[in-house]
Amino acid sequence: MAGLTGKRVGMRTVKFANPPSILAAASVVGPKEGEGPLSQYFDVVVDDPMFGESTPERAETRFLFEAGRLALDKAKLAPQGVDYFLAGDLLDQIVSSSFAARRLGIPYVGLFGACATVAEGVSLGSMLLDGGFASKVLVATSSHYQSAERQFRYPIELNIQRKGTAQYTATGAGAAVLGAAGDGPVVTHATIGRVVDFGIKDPNDFGAAMAPAAVDTFVSHLRDLGRSPNDYDLVLTGDLAQVGKALFGELVARQGYQLGDNYDDCGVMLYEPRQETGVGGSGCACSAVVACGYVAKSMIAGKFRRVLLISTGALLSPLTYQQGESIPAIAHAIVIEAADVVDEGDGAT
Amino acid sequence: MAGLTGKRVGMRTVKFANPPSILAAASVVGPKEGEGPLSQYFDVVVDDPMFGESTPERAETRFLFEAGRLALDKAKLAPQGVDYFLAGDLLDQIVSSSFAARRLGIPYVGLFGACATVAEGVSLGSMLLDGGFASKVLVATSSHYQSAERQFRYPIELNIQRKGTAQYTATGAGAAVLGAAGDGPVVTHATIGRVVDFGIKDPNDFGAAMAPAAVDTFVSHLRDLGRSPNDYDLVLTGDLAQVGKALFGELVARQGYQLGDNYDDCGVMLYEPRQETGVGGSGCACSAVVACGYVAKSMIAGKFRRVLLISTGALLSPLTYQQGESIPAIAHAIVIEAADVVDEGDGAT
Repeated sequence: MAGLTGKRVGMRTVKFANPPSILAAASVVGPKEGEGPLSQYFDVVVDDPMFGESTPERAETRFLFEAGRLALDKAKLAPQGVDYFLAGDLLDQIVSSSFAARRLGIPYVGLFGACATVAEGVSLGSMLLDGGFASKVLVATSSHYQSAERQFRYPIELNIQRKGTAQYTATGAGAAVLGAAGDGPVVTHATIGRVVDFGIKDPNDFGAAMAPAAVDTFVSHLRDLGRSPNDYDLVLTGDLAQVGKALFGELVARQGYQLGDNYDDCGVMLYEPRQETGVGGSGCACSAVVACGYVAKSMIAGKFRRVLLISTGALLSPLTYQQGESIPAIAHAIVIEAADVVDEGDGAT
Repeated sequence: MAGLTGKRVGMRTVKFANPPSILAAASVVGPKEGEGPLSQYFDVVVDDPMFGESTPERAETRFLFEAGRLALDKAKLAPQGVDYFLAGDLLDQIVSSSFAARRLGIPYVGLFGACATVAEGVSLGSMLLDGGFASKVLVATSSHYQSAERQFRYPIELNIQRKGTAQYTATGAGAAVLGAAGDGPVVTHATIGRVVDFGIKDPNDFGAAMAPAAVDTFVSHLRDLGRSPNDYDLVLTGDLAQVGKALFGELVARQGYQLGDNYDDCGVMLYEPRQETGVGGSGCACSAVVACGYVAKSMIAGKFRRVLLISTGALLSPLTYQQGESIPAIAHAIVIEAADVVDEGDGAT
């Protein structure tokens, strides 16, 4: 049990003994995301949201597959060189992931963490690497505006008016190849979330439903490591968007922590107000493309040395909403650090 | 990388350095399963398939929660004593698992492996334990005849005639508490599956769609370990049912392996022909309740010393079927051994 003591820190957080490297990250997005403020950070902007496919579900699968293939190419790996493919998405029975897995042919671990899937995947993938069960893993997730709208709300052809607090599901996919050894930023810690439900029932207000879960994971993480928000160059929530982001700040303050300019939300960052995307982005792709695009490239450029990503997910289905259930939410957090800072002043944690 | 070499065997299989113990297993089933041949092995048979709830989805959540709670009780653990809850099910957005996770309050890792979820969960949970990231994990999965029928096919109220090759979704849930140390049978190996698709498009013939995936994982597993089917006291596939079981035997024979009386399929074992359950059982609960009921209790009684469970899953959704896609399938395998046989004559693997 000696190894156990060293790898768990506090109640909820694990610290990797040999922090896995992000060997490559890739982001493939749709036109709307390509017109947003983060455009320059995405590897591929596809002009056609249908990606040449006949249905939005097939288009989403294509986004996921292409992001995975691009990440492998960047890492100079064939699918045969990867031990596990960890993936999930929002579609019923995560078919985008399973159909991409069919094409990739890598042993496949299907996940569902709603819009928090990228952090769930990186957390698990890092555990498999640090635990000695793999030398390379591919993590990927996707979402698509049209497939999500028609599954969770209404087909876009109906032109239903959007609610004021509604978010806009990002179209795209993010993928990362993690390795037990290699260059690149490393994953140093992971904090797996609990399900938190404050009784919110409005499926057009996911940000408010998810904010308490993000706070629970964030505060647990800080307490486990004895850190403050200022110990990170960047703290990112996944897709709280404008309403949830403000609520997150308030709830964190009540716990005695102050957020500064180093805090932002992927859903707020992904679009500009002129793009008519409601209060901001959402979907599995939201934090995935920001992490695999903006964060990865900014870290390689030396802009950030330690980033905390808290991906957020709403664990409902249309059916649970129709049956009057409130919206359970979850948040998973990962710490990404520049490879040269991992052992600096971190002795206590 | 020294640890890595020791934990991976062959192309696809991992061998646990410190095989996690199954501290407790629990099975809670509906009335039909309770009338079947394995009745005596289940912990709880609930007479009312609705479990006192108002909808089949809520009933399924209840089965999952009760199986998890019973497994914790048997292991004399409170939810606070468990590091991770790994769970998944067939419902859209795996809501049975997420709603059970809300009630349990354990940090939650949502999974989707269709009807192979129990083996996916035990594989991952064992990696988290053996990797030093947890000391206890709870793995659980569920399915429900009524919630599955109305989501994947037709509400049972419509009384649609069933196809000849159709299977019957099991109602119930299986749960297991795994520990890094402790008494009880142990999980020694895991083989994570690839997606295999032979182009079968009939959603009333899952057994035929899944058999090739089961063969792929089974043969990979045997080759990785240099074993034959006779090295196991019991080889179980998850829910191939009668059609898929026969096909599995044929396909395995073509690969040069002969199956004997030690092979059976959970879907075939769960019901008797007089119960009008088509060609046999299916659903996440099928292999979960057979593993957590029959296998666990038979091993504790000394009947089996080494069991290979190959859980099988069809990774389709109603939508992919409607869009003309074939059925991708997957199978994950785990080896469970009586604690006293782990180190016997196993030096080479």
